[in-house]
Amino acid sequence: MGEKVAFIGLGVMGFPMAGHLVKAGHEVTVYNRNAAKAEAWVQKFGGRKADTPAAAAKGNKFVMSCVGNDDDLRSVILGAAGAFAGMDKGATLVDHTTASADVARELAADAEKKGLGFLDAPVSGGQAGAENGVLTVMVGGKETTYGPAEPVIKAYARMCKLLGPAGSGQLTKMVNQICIAGTVQGLSEGLALARATGLDIASVVEVISKGAAQSWQMENRYKTMLESKFDFGFAVDWMRKDLGICLNEARRAGVTLPVTALVDQFYAEVQQMGGSRWDTSSLIARLEAKKTKQ
Amino acid sequence: MGEKVAFIGLGVMGFPMAGHLVKAGHEVTVYNRNAAKAEAWVQKFGGRKADTPAAAAKGNKFVMSCVGNDDDLRSVILGAAGAFAGMDKGATLVDHTTASADVARELAADAEKKGLGFLDAPVSGGQAGAENGVLTVMVGGKETTYGPAEPVIKAYARMCKLLGPAGSGQLTKMVNQICIAGTVQGLSEGLALARATGLDIASVVEVISKGAAQSWQMENRYKTMLESKFDFGFAVDWMRKDLGICLNEARRAGVTLPVTALVDQFYAEVQQMGGSRWDTSSLIARLEAKKTKQ
Repeated sequence: MGEKVAFIGLGVMGFPMAGHLVKAGHEVTVYNRNAAKAEAWVQKFGGRKADTPAAAAKGNKFVMSCVGNDDDLRSVILGAAGAFAGMDKGATLVDHTTASADVARELAADAEKKGLGFLDAPVSGGQAGAENGVLTVMVGGKETTYGPAEPVIKAYARMCKLLGPAGSGQLTKMVNQICIAGTVQGLSEGLALARATGLDIASVVEVISKGAAQSWQMENRYKTMLESKFDFGFAVDWMRKDLGICLNEARRAGVTLPVTALVDQFYAEVQQMGGSRWDTSSLIARLEAKKTKQ
Repeated sequence: MGEKVAFIGLGVMGFPMAGHLVKAGHEVTVYNRNAAKAEAWVQKFGGRKADTPAAAAKGNKFVMSCVGNDDDLRSVILGAAGAFAGMDKGATLVDHTTASADVARELAADAEKKGLGFLDAPVSGGQAGAENGVLTVMVGGKETTYGPAEPVIKAYARMCKLLGPAGSGQLTKMVNQICIAGTVQGLSEGLALARATGLDIASVVEVISKGAAQSWQMENRYKTMLESKFDFGFAVDWMRKDLGICLNEARRAGVTLPVTALVDQFYAEVQQMGGSRWDTSSLIARLEAKKTKQ
């Protein structure tokens, strides 16, 4: 049963996500800051495009957004041309941006005043997950808002779960990124020692991935890490944005994240090496680059 | 088909491992520094005990050892009362101690001069793995030595693999511990932030363990970490010993292990908190203890 849905933000994630909404039978209107991208999307998937977030939002039951950061998010949601200004009472905004829990709570409160629904719903699974429609979606908000939105989100999600009140989706995404940071750095250090001491690393991984050292990162990234193949996956620039959000949130919560803070600095060094667009597994390049310098 | 096997070192690992050899039909002689423990072992499993490693080793085709560290290992293997002095030509020593790659290479060279076989074969899987006979065994040494020893080792191993020349078993174990160090600290930081911000952590783990943040540690330890249950598993004292070996090896290889070095310091703080015998997952106790101090 098709719904009327708007999608704001056609980046590497939003472009295919909005496409999956069309394939699922929804009537989709898109908005993108760069209008050429919106035109390309309409050419590929059909549907309509609008000139402002407010115009895109108007008349739709659901408005999805997926933009860069807190500021980008405020700029497409708030103000006279923002999505909230165009949305009908009772409509719901589902935000897929990885942003702060603060901005999620701020937008949820603002939505409530306007008689709108709001869900913070950051995703994981990267570009491939978006293209294949198998993202994991971590949602914060009210149950009554979440229930009707879930079937629409499922157009591009394999896993979708309400985790608590507004902000809970963002906080869950932070926990996810923090775990990844420690795991990838540990794996990088292990692989660097293995390579420097001449071990047959495929055999090593075969053995140690059966036990307490096992991780998704080990199973899915060790080969590409050893090949220095980083032109895919989740970019270091985005990871630094996310870790910045984690460190701010921890500062507010009075929690120390010493390894997360250190790994954030290591990613800064990867950026300095020219690795801004490399996958997060490129921490090993930083470790090993130092060894080959003259 | 039973073999004649000696087992040296009846600690929390060696005691059940030697028992599995009996259950597999081997004829077992044990030696332990504390003779009462050897007596208790004979009471429980049958077999014989000897008064020195040399006496235990004499007349056996395989001699297994599992002691504390490099020095303990040298003391039971070398010298007039050591295992090498008692072993018949053609017999093989399989050392399950987690020790340095250096001592493994040193003992392998010494064994070769004496016409003996030597395998460095550290294990993972902890006390439970030893008791249930499902350890992972990482082996370094010659293929011709490994072949005949493998069926004997299988008495207490689910996974056993030759990874390269002498020292390769120890190096593989180091890679394992390095990966664990980063993963457990990352998980601890993620859980600490989740708890401080009031998330429903079971739901968070349900969602994020489907993707790139997944790890054995997350799946098997998050609950006990949140319950501050650390009276099981692999003790912090032993983890520090292992990380010390890793850091020495990295120093020799010219590899930097910044997070491993930091986590080793964190484990030192857990020791100062009285957590020497706690499981390695107790890194979260250190993170959160600071929050509750007055």
